[in-house]
Amino acid sequence: MAIIGKEITSAEELEKHFKEHSVAEFFKKNMQMLGLTGKIRTLTTIIHEYVTNSIDACEDAKILPEIEIRITELAPLHYEVMTKDNGPGLTKSTVGRALGKLLAGTKFHRLIQSRGQQGIGASGVTMLSQITTGQPIKVLTGNGKETFACEISIDVRKNEPKITNFQDLKKEYRGTIIRARFKDVKYVKSEQGPLEYLRRTAIANPHATIKFIAPNNEKFVFRRSIQQIPAKPKEVKPHPKGITVDELITLAKHTKAKKVVSFLKSDFDRMGEKAINEISKLVSFDLNKDPKQLRWHEAEELVKAFKKVNFIAPRTDTLRPIGKERIEKAIKAIVQPEFLAVVTRAPQVYKGGFPFQVEVAIAYGGKAGKVINGQKKIEIMRFANRVPLLFDAGGCAITKAVNSIDWKRYNIKDIENTPLTIFVNLISVFVPYTSAGKQAISEEEEIIEELRLGLMDCARKISKFIAGKQREYERKMKKETFFKYIPEVAKSLHKVTKNDYESIKRKLERLVLERLRLEEKEVEENEKKGKAA
Amino acid sequence: MAIIGKEITSAEELEKHFKEHSVAEFFKKNMQMLGLTGKIRTLTTIIHEYVTNSIDACEDAKILPEIEIRITELAPLHYEVMTKDNGPGLTKSTVGRALGKLLAGTKFHRLIQSRGQQGIGASGVTMLSQITTGQPIKVLTGNGKETFACEISIDVRKNEPKITNFQDLKKEYRGTIIRARFKDVKYVKSEQGPLEYLRRTAIANPHATIKFIAPNNEKFVFRRSIQQIPAKPKEVKPHPKGITVDELITLAKHTKAKKVVSFLKSDFDRMGEKAINEISKLVSFDLNKDPKQLRWHEAEELVKAFKKVNFIAPRTDTLRPIGKERIEKAIKAIVQPEFLAVVTRAPQVYKGGFPFQVEVAIAYGGKAGKVINGQKKIEIMRFANRVPLLFDAGGCAITKAVNSIDWKRYNIKDIENTPLTIFVNLISVFVPYTSAGKQAISEEEEIIEELRLGLMDCARKISKFIAGKQREYERKMKKETFFKYIPEVAKSLHKVTKNDYESIKRKLERLVLERLRLEEKEVEENEKKGKAA
Repeated sequence: MAIIGKEITSAEELEKHFKEHSVAEFFKKNMQMLGLTGKIRTLTTIIHEYVTNSIDACEDAKILPEIEIRITELAPLHYEVMTKDNGPGLTKSTVGRALGKLLAGTKFHRLIQSRGQQGIGASGVTMLSQITTGQPIKVLTGNGKETFACEISIDVRKNEPKITNFQDLKKEYRGTIIRARFKDVKYVKSEQGPLEYLRRTAIANPHATIKFIAPNNEKFVFRRSIQQIPAKPKEVKPHPKGITVDELITLAKHTKAKKVVSFLKSDFDRMGEKAINEISKLVSFDLNKDPKQLRWHEAEELVKAFKKVNFIAPRTDTLRPIGKERIEKAIKAIVQPEFLAVVTRAPQVYKGGFPFQVEVAIAYGGKAGKVINGQKKIEIMRFANRVPLLFDAGGCAITKAVNSIDWKRYNIKDIENTPLTIFVNLISVFVPYTSAGKQAISEEEEIIEELRLGLMDCARKISKFIAGKQREYERKMKKETFFKYIPEVAKSLHKVTKNDYESIKRKLERLVLERLRLEEKEVEENEKKGKAA
Repeated sequence: MAIIGKEITSAEELEKHFKEHSVAEFFKKNMQMLGLTGKIRTLTTIIHEYVTNSIDACEDAKILPEIEIRITELAPLHYEVMTKDNGPGLTKSTVGRALGKLLAGTKFHRLIQSRGQQGIGASGVTMLSQITTGQPIKVLTGNGKETFACEISIDVRKNEPKITNFQDLKKEYRGTIIRARFKDVKYVKSEQGPLEYLRRTAIANPHATIKFIAPNNEKFVFRRSIQQIPAKPKEVKPHPKGITVDELITLAKHTKAKKVVSFLKSDFDRMGEKAINEISKLVSFDLNKDPKQLRWHEAEELVKAFKKVNFIAPRTDTLRPIGKERIEKAIKAIVQPEFLAVVTRAPQVYKGGFPFQVEVAIAYGGKAGKVINGQKKIEIMRFANRVPLLFDAGGCAITKAVNSIDWKRYNIKDIENTPLTIFVNLISVFVPYTSAGKQAISEEEEIIEELRLGLMDCARKISKFIAGKQREYERKMKKETFFKYIPEVAKSLHKVTKNDYESIKRKLERLVLERLRLEEKEVEENEKKGKAA
């Protein structure tokens, strides 16, 4: 809201205009930063926020996710979204903060791989409902002990939840149902619509069953193909290679350890006796010092020492890749490609000590790629912690990595117009999104590099297949060209030699085929030599 | 910082893990959302935050900006940044909030065109200094009445400023000097480096003098070419065409007016007697009602009525375009193009009632475009409220608008490889950035449409010039082809006719030139007819 005031021309005038505002006010004015912009995108983002929360909650509680989404058109550009899950439910004390307060939640301070991570998304959606319809969202939740219903909106100025129409319900229930209404949104069945979002979610989460009822009452069921809940990722302690000085000091301030030596052992991943011995020789102070007394330059010495010591790579059980076989199975089922290469790379660490891992698949032929104006084009499916990223492709590290590859080296001459589906899943205990809308990954150097390595791994595999396809095509074209002239040549020879035309023709055909076979053999032998060399 | 706790498997466990965090903690963990990511980008963003604040402050105080920036390399990847302006200075009460508290400032609640708008940038930079070096930033400021120095850092957990080493200074001073140190950043002289950022800032702000001292002590001065401070944009009341129901209710709650009718007159732009008469007939309630009692459905009726009434377009004095002549002057000086088309479009309103305006220039030839591997390529210079946008081009509405144009229709066959400089400045009282890093504009439909219209305006002008260039080229090629064969033909004719070879050759040459002239005339006449038709 505008405040029309006196002109500001001096430092004192400036002082009078100085205002503070809440994070809710900030995001209310900048809904586009939450991905809540554009009629189509907004509806997809709403579904995205609810579904990621539901799957996260189910997995935390070791429940196989069963999620239902229904979108109902109430009037043009006016919709109701209903989501229902079989998760652990919310309590009276958490429901308001989970759905009616920005920057509150369970995920922010924990180093554990999850889909949500900021405690903004679902509350942002509540704010959108109240801004566009003036109505709160309706919640019904049961956690096995208590079942209750209420309505939630946000006091934007204070960033506090407002709970109304609270009702204790007698029936036992486990799960959460949310009904919310929105204006100025639109349902479409497009590449950026809710249906495609759910289809891709199903690809990356084969252990979840997702039901969807579209506004025209069409029903879709993505049934789980795997009956096991993925092994739960462990919460991770920071890996020494990635920690910053500031983070080390924060950890030191809050540790229960009384000496730096025990602080290092208890608060870091992969910190063994040998490493600590090495570190003690690299720093200028005694490691028996109280960690709470650690000064900046001492912490700096520690971080420098960490860089020189050889630690074991970060634990892999902190990350939960989809896995090579599951990706293969999912892509084969949907894309039915002629050729498929899948790579799950080893975990790495990026700035801040966050472990991450890259999964890449490249599918060629079949239903791979997407069709635009009757032309097959490349399709890039981006995921972060198994969540599909449908928007902001241009600003994403995954797109940048794909564009940075010299595809010609892998026999792909015109990447844009090749029937390829490139699948990339980045998993991490903390995904560095470019915006609170969580649709694009920031271009961290270590992440770009790993993405490139994964893409090149797959590209190498597929390049041989494509080279073969191209040889076959060239052979076919050569054969056709030769065969086109055979009747003419045969006719001339027949005139000159008076031999039988048909017999000459057959002989010429045999000659050409023989010649092509020889050429093929030569190429293959050269390739074998090339490999041996 | 990680909290390693018990596994969360029930709603009650979840409750124990529920945490709230401050907006400073959020952005500290997500520095990439502030553009503070990557060694090179981070340093440019730091300069960007300080320089935009300085120019805004100077213009508010009607001072011709005089800004000095010095970057000093203290050690590899360790720099000091000093910025000095001649602005109105800060007071003891504002200095902490301006530089040590996120979401505090003068700009957020005002509908006035300015470069900064969120009250995040400069405090984010303070946080970066303390995270990478453990040190506060040093400030010296004078506002004509008092001069003082202090050090500022942020209590991240509370999002509150910490002021240390405060010193009252006796000397009189006007302006602000900030010294801050950063690690893990790098100065480079590249398209995304501080120097290019300042060069573009100078292009869009010809009334500012900007001095820059690079780490190698090289000095650059961008001297002001215009001695007048741009006319100060007025603060704007919301235009009725763009207001949302929620915003209308918020305004109604805070208005001093006692009746809806006076509320409409006092709180909206372009609301005349005639419009109010029309509105009163379109709504079901009495406009003498107390605005504080306005209910959602009544506010909805008002907004619907606004859509049906013809209001005058938004006031243009709320926006401050650079202006056609100034853009021409600036681009001619720097790019020296063969051809230049500049358009400043009329103001429009986008969602939320925010006026905006688009300025576009397309320069062809000369130093237009950029050189990559010896090849001339297209260069797109993006600006928002005269601030250069150097990053996140892929996710920006300006890039999307450029890519959506069918350039072939304007005789530009391969836009990527054409020596063009496209200059776009979007000005608005509220720029919808995609992220708090403010480097890309969100794809609002109305904005994309205006950008397209501006680009097509310029494209039409330049297409004629390019068509002429192409005709000239074709004529030249034709002439060369004909002339190549003239000696041979002349020789043959000489042999047959025995006439003088040189004379035949001259005659043939005249013949060809005459023929080409005729063709040219024909084309021109066809064009004239085409115009007349």
